[in-house]
Amino acid sequence: MDGGDEPAFVRIARGIADDVRRGRFRAGDALPGTRPLATTLGVSRNTVVAAYRELVAEGWAVTRRGGGTFVAEGLPDPPPRRIRGAVRPVEMASAAAFPLHGDASEPPDPPETPRGTLVMAGGVPDVRLVPVLDLARALRRVLTGKAARGVLGYGDPRGDARLRAAVADLVRERRGIAARPENVLIVRGSQMALELVARAVLPGGRAIAVEAIGYRPAWTAFARAGARVVPIPIDRDGLDVDALAAVVRREPIAAVYVTPHHHYPTTVTLGAGRRLALLGLARRASFAVIEDDYDHELHYEGRPVLPLASADVHGSVVYVGTLSKVVAPGLRLGYVVAPEPVIERLARERFVLDRQGDHVAERAVAEMLEDGTVARHVRRMRSVYALRRDLLVAELGRAFGGRIDVRAPPGGMALWARVDLAPHLVAVWERRAAREGVVFAAGERFVFDGGAVPFARFGFASLDERELREAVRRLARAFPRS
Amino acid sequence: MDGGDEPAFVRIARGIADDVRRGRFRAGDALPGTRPLATTLGVSRNTVVAAYRELVAEGWAVTRRGGGTFVAEGLPDPPPRRIRGAVRPVEMASAAAFPLHGDASEPPDPPETPRGTLVMAGGVPDVRLVPVLDLARALRRVLTGKAARGVLGYGDPRGDARLRAAVADLVRERRGIAARPENVLIVRGSQMALELVARAVLPGGRAIAVEAIGYRPAWTAFARAGARVVPIPIDRDGLDVDALAAVVRREPIAAVYVTPHHHYPTTVTLGAGRRLALLGLARRASFAVIEDDYDHELHYEGRPVLPLASADVHGSVVYVGTLSKVVAPGLRLGYVVAPEPVIERLARERFVLDRQGDHVAERAVAEMLEDGTVARHVRRMRSVYALRRDLLVAELGRAFGGRIDVRAPPGGMALWARVDLAPHLVAVWERRAAREGVVFAAGERFVFDGGAVPFARFGFASLDERELREAVRRLARAFPRS
Repeated sequence: MDGGDEPAFVRIARGIADDVRRGRFRAGDALPGTRPLATTLGVSRNTVVAAYRELVAEGWAVTRRGGGTFVAEGLPDPPPRRIRGAVRPVEMASAAAFPLHGDASEPPDPPETPRGTLVMAGGVPDVRLVPVLDLARALRRVLTGKAARGVLGYGDPRGDARLRAAVADLVRERRGIAARPENVLIVRGSQMALELVARAVLPGGRAIAVEAIGYRPAWTAFARAGARVVPIPIDRDGLDVDALAAVVRREPIAAVYVTPHHHYPTTVTLGAGRRLALLGLARRASFAVIEDDYDHELHYEGRPVLPLASADVHGSVVYVGTLSKVVAPGLRLGYVVAPEPVIERLARERFVLDRQGDHVAERAVAEMLEDGTVARHVRRMRSVYALRRDLLVAELGRAFGGRIDVRAPPGGMALWARVDLAPHLVAVWERRAAREGVVFAAGERFVFDGGAVPFARFGFASLDERELREAVRRLARAFPRS
Repeated sequence: MDGGDEPAFVRIARGIADDVRRGRFRAGDALPGTRPLATTLGVSRNTVVAAYRELVAEGWAVTRRGGGTFVAEGLPDPPPRRIRGAVRPVEMASAAAFPLHGDASEPPDPPETPRGTLVMAGGVPDVRLVPVLDLARALRRVLTGKAARGVLGYGDPRGDARLRAAVADLVRERRGIAARPENVLIVRGSQMALELVARAVLPGGRAIAVEAIGYRPAWTAFARAGARVVPIPIDRDGLDVDALAAVVRREPIAAVYVTPHHHYPTTVTLGAGRRLALLGLARRASFAVIEDDYDHELHYEGRPVLPLASADVHGSVVYVGTLSKVVAPGLRLGYVVAPEPVIERLARERFVLDRQGDHVAERAVAEMLEDGTVARHVRRMRSVYALRRDLLVAELGRAFGGRIDVRAPPGGMALWARVDLAPHLVAVWERRAAREGVVFAAGERFVFDGGAVPFARFGFASLDERELREAVRRLARAFPRS
């Protein structure tokens, strides 16, 4: 509603307040009697009484013993011009009257895509597969059950106890990490985990090593925490640990951030020898290994490779996982597994950041982990996504012949493919494809220094078979003739 | 499950990997043939084949053309001692092998209270009143409705569009702030809002003024952002704006953090004259006013006083509100209302911090705001809490005579009372009360420099009438005889 729909007494009170602001009444002035003002305004006396009560409540006026209402003392001189209309609230300012720190030019999210665009997003599951009824039922059970009181109020910043236990079970049973509930911190999603770790292990100016082709939002979080971000080359076996060792010989680093299971974005798996070498190096040089195992479950060939954390006897690894991919990104649930002192340190940062998580959702997902709902959903996703991967490989092969060198990745939600184009033309293709209604990512988006590379990334998980076929047709139409 | 329940092929693969780690096999060594090893181990040949496939998948071994499986090249020299058993995962380390930055000694949350303790928490609503069925229904509607796809995936870091619009309506209609949806950022709770604002307006070393008796978690967030936190005295009219002006004359400040509606923790309302003076000062000195209106709805006498933001024509005010109190703290929903450039700047910080909110919960609460469920719940809370406030005032009066000077606050969820005790004895009373099974807060907890004051704070919202009576009995038993 706008001001015109407000009760009469509010309009009258606002009008008088504005008169005070404009200087028509001054501090200590008597306001008109309620009876004459009611007659003047054509309202009941009660309305004026209510307006005066409002003015008193808002501090504009005071009543004195013996009767009468007066403009409050202590109001400053009237401002030089009228600052708002009598009734309507002031317009919201269109700019800030104070300086903002840092850069706000880049928008926080990609531009909107027109309706009908097929987005081959590399990290997004198909939300059409989310077991929404199971989730709704679990939420209802939590909200209406005996535990409701416990999860609706303020709670533990480390996360709901049941979910901490369920995650400890999950990583112990499926991933060989000897975690207890005390080793688990529930967070919003892996981005918050990275933010917390950055605060806990990267005092200003220290260095963190990252994969030179990798996950840019992580680099941003580290840089914002004041760290120097040092790119390390990657190859077909993932992070070049020898190159990392050379860096460590030159300068101490506080941490390394790696995606060893399916390297982001290339999906290669860090080789066994490099795993051991990395853990040994971390121990000797006392740096933290931040292991982001963002899609552990989505492995299609054989069993997933065990995380670095499963062989971490010395406490070098901070293991970051997410439930966003396996339940729903919109739910925002992730976790950190680490030695208990690390968890306590991160929990402290978490408390300052946003106090605690949504314990209703946390408890509901704990129940879905306990009763096997999540495991069933993961099995379903895995079989659906494996089919989509194979379909996309086949369709790209048919449409592009040898121009795109596609190998089916052993896991994940995207293909990383060498493209037979001059490197700078991949971005041209990306832009032309967007106009054709299909979004993929040119490889340079993942390169630390932004240099062009003859690679591209195609997500396959969030599109169904019909959509994938159409996406490839559009990709082919957009392909630059070079 | 522990390792003993794992399939035989996994146990065999782990055993061989451990042999490699222990140096029994070296890089390039041929592994035994599958047939003889199967005979030796008493398993089927397929099991050994599966184990070798596993070793290859994990990078421990390679197969060569012409047959045979070999230990992969590039494994480092064996570590000097056995690092884990053949089957069981390694124990989680009990300490970090890397340095942690900053202090982790203070626990992130208050110690557990024994069962039966009555907690007179000042900022906690009674979660027994939460409309859980309405909330469960709203969540189910969102999850199973047409919009589900839109809210389950990744979305806008500024928040669900429907909730941004509903919050803009709320503050426009009820609080006189001329907000449009673009002026609204949905966050987790007010703590995250303060964190984001700190990052956006407090580049390292700048000063922020705060109420010298106030909300410590906010001070912590500002200090962690690198700001110098400057306390400003408060009195019966709230923040002493003259004192603030004197500070501003001496040194520039980037922002002031205030709770003008019900000052935290004393519940006094910032006077009208000081409001205008504060806005004028902010404009002239180009600092931001961070207005934390944490319990706007819980006002029992007359209408709530309008926020500073309702008179902010120049864009000095960043208005922070929360839905945690009016729906449920566990849901973690808050918002910032500010000029659009400020919102965009904050959204960028938010993206780095935790990408986005839980859009399922956001949409559900948007629907509860639209259909009046939240308004009904607020009216109910308000009438229940007003009764509890009056009961607590009466009970404290009866039990303590004149030793506690209680005035019923016009709003909020707690009483702030002068206590007829030497200041240092209030904390003694607090400790004795905890032993009697009732938790309240000594005034010094809210004092910037921690000095003792003869005040105490008693929350009344989360306890019912029977509990409040019992709480006062326990308070009386614990009262120091001085």
